[in-house]
Amino acid sequence: MTAYADFQNHIAELSDLLNAISILKWDARTQMPPGGAATRGNQLATLSRVAQAHFISDKTARILDAVEAEIAGEDPDSYRVRAVKQTRQYYDIVRRIPVELTARKATLAPVSEHVWSEAKKNNDFASFAPYLRQMLELAKQQADAVGYEGHPFDALVFEFEPSVNAASLKVLFEDLKAGLLPLLKRIVAHDKPLEKDLWAREYPLDKQKAFGLEIAQKIGYDLERGRLDIAPHPFEISFTRNDVRITTRYNLNYLPMALYGTMHETGHALYEQGVSAELTRSALTTDFLGQYPVGGTSYGAHESQSRLWENQIGRSRDFWNVHFDRLREFFPEQLADADPDLLYRSVNRVRPSLIRVEADEVTYNLHIMLRVEIEMALLEGSLQVEDLPEAWNAKMQEYLGVTPPNDSKGVLQDVHWSGGGFGSFPGYTIGNVMSSQFLEAAHQQVAGLDDSLRRGEYAPLLTWLQQNIYQHGRAYDANELLVRSTSSPLHVKPYLAYLEAKFTGLYGLS
Amino acid sequence: MTAYADFQNHIAELSDLLNAISILKWDARTQMPPGGAATRGNQLATLSRVAQAHFISDKTARILDAVEAEIAGEDPDSYRVRAVKQTRQYYDIVRRIPVELTARKATLAPVSEHVWSEAKKNNDFASFAPYLRQMLELAKQQADAVGYEGHPFDALVFEFEPSVNAASLKVLFEDLKAGLLPLLKRIVAHDKPLEKDLWAREYPLDKQKAFGLEIAQKIGYDLERGRLDIAPHPFEISFTRNDVRITTRYNLNYLPMALYGTMHETGHALYEQGVSAELTRSALTTDFLGQYPVGGTSYGAHESQSRLWENQIGRSRDFWNVHFDRLREFFPEQLADADPDLLYRSVNRVRPSLIRVEADEVTYNLHIMLRVEIEMALLEGSLQVEDLPEAWNAKMQEYLGVTPPNDSKGVLQDVHWSGGGFGSFPGYTIGNVMSSQFLEAAHQQVAGLDDSLRRGEYAPLLTWLQQNIYQHGRAYDANELLVRSTSSPLHVKPYLAYLEAKFTGLYGLS
Repeated sequence: MTAYADFQNHIAELSDLLNAISILKWDARTQMPPGGAATRGNQLATLSRVAQAHFISDKTARILDAVEAEIAGEDPDSYRVRAVKQTRQYYDIVRRIPVELTARKATLAPVSEHVWSEAKKNNDFASFAPYLRQMLELAKQQADAVGYEGHPFDALVFEFEPSVNAASLKVLFEDLKAGLLPLLKRIVAHDKPLEKDLWAREYPLDKQKAFGLEIAQKIGYDLERGRLDIAPHPFEISFTRNDVRITTRYNLNYLPMALYGTMHETGHALYEQGVSAELTRSALTTDFLGQYPVGGTSYGAHESQSRLWENQIGRSRDFWNVHFDRLREFFPEQLADADPDLLYRSVNRVRPSLIRVEADEVTYNLHIMLRVEIEMALLEGSLQVEDLPEAWNAKMQEYLGVTPPNDSKGVLQDVHWSGGGFGSFPGYTIGNVMSSQFLEAAHQQVAGLDDSLRRGEYAPLLTWLQQNIYQHGRAYDANELLVRSTSSPLHVKPYLAYLEAKFTGLYGLS
Repeated sequence: MTAYADFQNHIAELSDLLNAISILKWDARTQMPPGGAATRGNQLATLSRVAQAHFISDKTARILDAVEAEIAGEDPDSYRVRAVKQTRQYYDIVRRIPVELTARKATLAPVSEHVWSEAKKNNDFASFAPYLRQMLELAKQQADAVGYEGHPFDALVFEFEPSVNAASLKVLFEDLKAGLLPLLKRIVAHDKPLEKDLWAREYPLDKQKAFGLEIAQKIGYDLERGRLDIAPHPFEISFTRNDVRITTRYNLNYLPMALYGTMHETGHALYEQGVSAELTRSALTTDFLGQYPVGGTSYGAHESQSRLWENQIGRSRDFWNVHFDRLREFFPEQLADADPDLLYRSVNRVRPSLIRVEADEVTYNLHIMLRVEIEMALLEGSLQVEDLPEAWNAKMQEYLGVTPPNDSKGVLQDVHWSGGGFGSFPGYTIGNVMSSQFLEAAHQQVAGLDDSLRRGEYAPLLTWLQQNIYQHGRAYDANELLVRSTSSPLHVKPYLAYLEAKFTGLYGLS
């Protein structure tokens, strides 16, 4: 057996273990009876220990030494070299993190998440503050263990988005704000209620599900390798490209919740189902740190696909021109007095609001930037946990012109920090920015793409995305993918141009 | 840490790994999209390898040596001593089986099962015969590796039913046949069609499910720790007592299929949910050989509970006297002209038939004995694979008075042999026999049990079963359970008396 085959077998086993963990998590969130929670926790903890022991073993070191010698001199951009290089990189990182730190975090996180959940319910930031301090301290220790040159945030964001750091994010955010804040002001000044409120009507859930699944398949989701379930916090999860599952949640009135939730998760799923079959059970479909959907290359790259299919496709005028009639077949009475234009405007209304997950395309990134700036300040010590609610509310007022009436609708709204997930928020905004770069390149490179989208034919776009992004799994990082397929690193111009054009038109701002 | 605590932790991890395997299997059979099959196979193979490596490691040997020294002199019937003793026993057995043999079996089984499935479809025993020969050869090798004193069958049945062997089974079967064959003859002579065929009507599936779940809960199934799904081959599966799932299958006309399927699997589930919480993740809820439902002590003991709740309770006159009105609320039109007596007779009609899984209470064990006798003959070499169809058909004629028109409805009907599952069939009949011994003892020991069953109150029976059987997990083998709770080892008298009384009454044979 070659050293490379030996390496592949070893990583394939690790991949199987990590995918088994994902299956147990999917089951816990969608199928498990409530009584199973405690022993499911035991099962997950044991599998995680076994997977970690498998990865940081001396056997991995021996295998890496042998395979590095064998592939020396091969094309540095080949899948083989990338697979070995990334395994080495993550092996070194994971070995640097003290086992006690990982164990401490694993033990504290569920307690802290529970305290957060109660604090959110009771609007009681003070009860959560001590836990947030501890999770923050553990995050700092982790950053120190992993190592960084500039800002401690760099070590944390690396786990989600290896190709950015605190400094590059600050530049990105300033560029974004320079476009977003003036645009938002102009929209708010022109906003008025729509002539009809389509979301005051009732849309039976079984029909919502049927329409959502029809759209998911239409844009390319393969149900032979997927399924749709209900979850209170929707997500996509993959157990190899052959089994990629999505979830959504339903609201009887607010049709867009389930539909765009389904399209969003379908975007993630298209990425996972589109990874090259040759990468199955390889290092290039393995998340060695357990932070993001397995096959894709980073949180941002993944989010670029969920956002692209949800927003640039699903919330476009073309989309409703094509699909409105079909939607009305499902809901003939509810939509008797509607038309494609009303639907388009009804799913795109911009309003500064308190809650990130309910935000529109224009305000969404302001919610993200606020969080990332606060994370950086907490990590560098320029902001103390006890001053967090005040800082939050001040930034909400500054960026969005609204002030939360209480902490439950403010600083306590997201689960991320309570579980120690510092560094994960930038991915959402990076995804938005990337999505427009990809779409711009696709339009330049695919003849007739405009026409095909106008006809509701998504295969040409999907094919381009598969060839340029999906098939590579994690072989290239987000920035490499951008440069390879769009000839440019991450930059905000196409995204701001997209928003400017769309909302100038929608609000008659020209 | 004490040696015992160390032992417990080590086994708890093994238990977690084996339960993870079960979760992946449940998912594969009930939820997984078809495309996921191949990589699910990889995941299961890796988890099995990891679990086996965990168990047969030198670490297990060190832990066993230490804990055996620590518990020396303790009560041999205590859970602690039993846990250590069984772990040692299975450790020695598993270490005796060559790794290559296990690997060869694991590789061949799915191929052989596929060939069998095609052979069954095409009524082509000859194409399956070479694979059956190989699986039989592997079973013989396994028996030789495990070791036995009397018959090679002893080593194989041990994996499913440690307290019986070929010799004791032959005695049991002769005793059974002496009662069953004459009873069957008398019934057949008196059989005539019922005045109405309730199973020519249609029973909508959602109502079948609702009624089945209501009954399952009524007899004690805890849905906080369980759920009911659909599966083409129904089964119960447990991932600790906190998460015990059942499946059933539905037929629009034949209401008893789903109802008694649900009650049967609920019987298994009551056993698993009733295991003492202190045994969770312990050796006494761990199946070191991966052969039968995790918490219970043997295939037969488990089957005694599924059969008891399905047949002695669910197919009793008392049951329909109590529950008929409720069933008619679900199906008012279908059952407008029915009454409890007709329902009772409709779910208890005895007819010698070709297919085991469709057999009634009287003929079922004849199907089993035929299979076990054939297995023994194959293993000792007194029957050759090529002569199997002829031997099968001859025994069918001898025991049941029917001859299969083809091998698909004869020797090819069960999957068991194609996967190498020799030794598993006796459990079905042992379960039937045990169920009547348990029920007789419960009636003797629980005051007013007759009355409570007549009123449809199942808590007194469930409590007796929990205290005498379920709570102990695998601490005592089937025969020990019988002796402890009924003061007698396995014997056929109560079971034959139950059948004689029930069917003499039903068919007016007295």
